[in-house]
Formats: sequence, structure tokens, C-alpha cells
Amino acid sequence: MSSINERYPVSCAFCKIAKAYPAESSPVPANPDPELIDPGCYLILSTPQVMAFLDIMPIAPGHILLTTRPHYEKLSDMYAPPKSTDWASEKTATQAKEVSQAIGEWLPIVSRALCAVTGIEDWNVVQNNGERAAQVVPHVHFHLIPRYQEGRREIGGKGKVDYGMLKSWKVFGRGSREDLDEEEAQVMASSLREALKVELGGGKAKL
Amino acid sequence: MSSINERYPVSCAFCKIAKAYPAESSPVPANPDPELIDPGCYLILSTPQVMAFLDIMPIAPGHILLTTRPHYEKLSDMYAPPKSTDWASEKTATQAKEVSQAIGEWLPIVSRALCAVTGIEDWNVVQNNGERAAQVVPHVHFHLIPRYQEGRREIGGKGKVDYGMLKSWKVFGRGSREDLDEEEAQVMASSLREALKVELGGGKAKL
Ligand SMILES: [Zn+2]
Ligand SMILES: [Zn+2]
Ligand SMILES: [Zn+2]
Ligand SMILES: [Zn+2]
Repeated sequence: MSSINERYPVSCAFCKIAKAYPAESSPVPANPDPELIDPGCYLILSTPQVMAFLDIMPIAPGHILLTTRPHYEKLSDMYAPPKSTDWASEKTATQAKEVSQAIGEWLPIVSRALCAVTGIEDWNVVQNNGERAAQVVPHVHFHLIPRYQEGRREIGGKGKVDYGMLKSWKVFGRGSREDLDEEEAQVMASSLREALKVELGGGKAKL
Repeated sequence: MSSINERYPVSCAFCKIAKAYPAESSPVPANPDPELIDPGCYLILSTPQVMAFLDIMPIAPGHILLTTRPHYEKLSDMYAPPKSTDWASEKTATQAKEVSQAIGEWLPIVSRALCAVTGIEDWNVVQNNGERAAQVVPHVHFHLIPRYQEGRREIGGKGKVDYGMLKSWKVFGRGSREDLDEEEAQVMASSLREALKVELGGGKAKL
């Protein structure tokens, strides 16, 4: 069995993304092509530990997924096995620790970019483990779901996506999920990448 | 204004817990007294960066909150301000980074302890920011909510809390939230602390 197949289970949608979009030198990818895979991926963050992209069935405009790059099915699989002199277990333990820390570190930063772009001030972070908990893709991921004001009239000074776009968003203000509109997704993803660069340029250079 | 009041806003329920239960030398507190504050706190984890305890209005038995120890209202407040030569901002940035990494690192470990104690395999992690996102306590916290099988008959080999207890749990199998039963909470918290020690002893000694 080849090690590439172990690292990227063929059947996992998020491992497909990890394979199509390798980590680059900068955490914010420069204009990645959404069509590298099908369905398209609107990538906004790509590091050796984590990735973030738009949910293809958004609950609200700007619905983002923050995922681990390596394949872990549930949070409990991000596990440091008992200490041993075995090099492979040591490596697994080190990776689990680095990836879990990176998830914690990026959640606030991606949240700030989401707020800056959409003008929202309220949002939920949801991570599901197992079928009974409504996990659909068996690869650890955190949903960032904006909560817009009811009948919202203005986007505010910070918003970089215009209100017309938010109003036209197919699922705006609804609890239901529909497919992502490609054009709107491109604008949203590009705005989020710019906002992430601002966050990183503003003092998180150590990341 | 005294620095102790800045660190522990009087009105914040979780800052009250942070003040009553300072970090000790071990991350798992040894038999902490739940009555140090009112309502009582069933503490299972206590470090300089994070704390975990039972939700006082559980959705299901074993409903845990993992919180930051310092006061941040929303995820976006766990922020590293722009780089400067100012010592205070540098300190704030370092703290935000350490705390966010610690949240990421403890989520899988607390999840594993929760699975071991309750026998569950499915659970949700939920973190709410702002009123429209149903945030009640304005201090960053992650809910770990077990999803039990419908009509579950056995707890399985791994479970350390007996099934009678789960059945008697006031909110078992319900979506509603009721007050935590003190006796049941003591057993649950003590089991969770033991399970955490096993996780940490089993190879996470570096934490
Ligand atoms: Zn995967
Ligand atoms: Zn999902
Ligand atoms: Zn607080
Ligand atoms: Zn809450």
C-alpha cells in the first residue's frame, strides 16, 4: 500500500482538497483555481496543518469550514499515542499536537476575517463528531456560521462585500442550505483572503 | 482601578470560577470543592490557559464546557494586536496565542475523556459568539455535548459511569436543559478527572 493513499483516503472529500491544494509558502493561497476539483473549492487558507474554504452548501453567506489537513475522523482521533521509542508513534503524536494547536490558533483569526468581510458581529462555531451528531464528512472540520441581523439594512463601515450581494445570496436569512453560487463564492473567497492577509500583516507574522 | 478587577470582571460567571479555582501544578485538579462558589462548579481541568467543568444546565449527561481562563468575550477577541515595541501589547499577543493553542490542544483530550466515561461515540462541539448566536455567558467557551443512542441499553466496556446513573439523569434523552443534580455531578466530574489523568499519563506528559 502506497503511503500517498494512506495520507489521502480516496473517498474523503476533504482529503481530495488537501491533495489538490498542497500547502504553499504563505498561509493565504494566491488566487487558487476553484476548478481543480469537482465540486469546486473556494480555498482561503492553506497550511501544513489546516485548511479553510467555503462550505458548498452554506447556511448563510460566508459559511466557512476550517479543517485539519491530515485526515482525522473525529476530534478524539487527534491523538497522541502512548510515549514510546517508536519513531512512527512519536511522529503521529507530534503531528496531532501541532494540528490541534493550529486549529485553536486559526479559529480566532478566521473569525476576525469573516466579521471584517460580512460586517457580522455574531456567529456560531460547530464541530460534529459521528452520525448521531450530524457529521457528514468524516474528516474533522469546524463550521463558522454567520448570524445576520433580521432585516439588516446596512453592512457597516467594516464590510467589504456589498449588501446587494448578501441580499441576493440564495440562502440569505434562511435556515436551509443550497448550492453555492459560483460567482458569489469567488467574490466572497477573494474578500476573505484579503481580510486574512490584513489580519496576518497586522501582527501575526509569527504564524 | 486595580489589576485584579481588570483580570476578573465581577459580573462574569466564568471569571468568578477562574478566580475561585486558580491553576495548580497539575492540569487535573485534585478533588476541588464545588461549593467554593454559587452555583457550584464541577471542575475537571484547570491550567493557566484553560478550564473545563460541567455545564450547570446540561443538555445531556456529561455536557462539558471548555473555557479560556482569561476573559475574552468572543473568539475574535483572542487577538494578537499589531506588533509594537509596547510591552503590554506584546504580552497580550503572546497570551492570546498561547490560550488559543491550548483550546485547540485540549479539545481532543477532553473529548477522549468524555467518550471513555460515558461510552458515547458521537458528540457536538459548539461555541457561540454574540446574542444572535445564542451566547449567554460573554466569555469564550466550547460546549461538548454527548449524543447518546436512542433507547440505549448498554454502556459498553469503556464506560465508567453506570447506566443506571445515565438513565436517572434528569435530562437524559431530552433536548431540554435542567439544573445539574449535585450527587450525579460529583460522580461524573470525578470520573472525568480520572479519565483525563489516564489520557495525560498515556503519552501527553509534555502538556
Ligand atoms: Zn479526509
Ligand atoms: Zn460538517
Ligand atoms: Zn469572564
Ligand atoms: Zn454557552
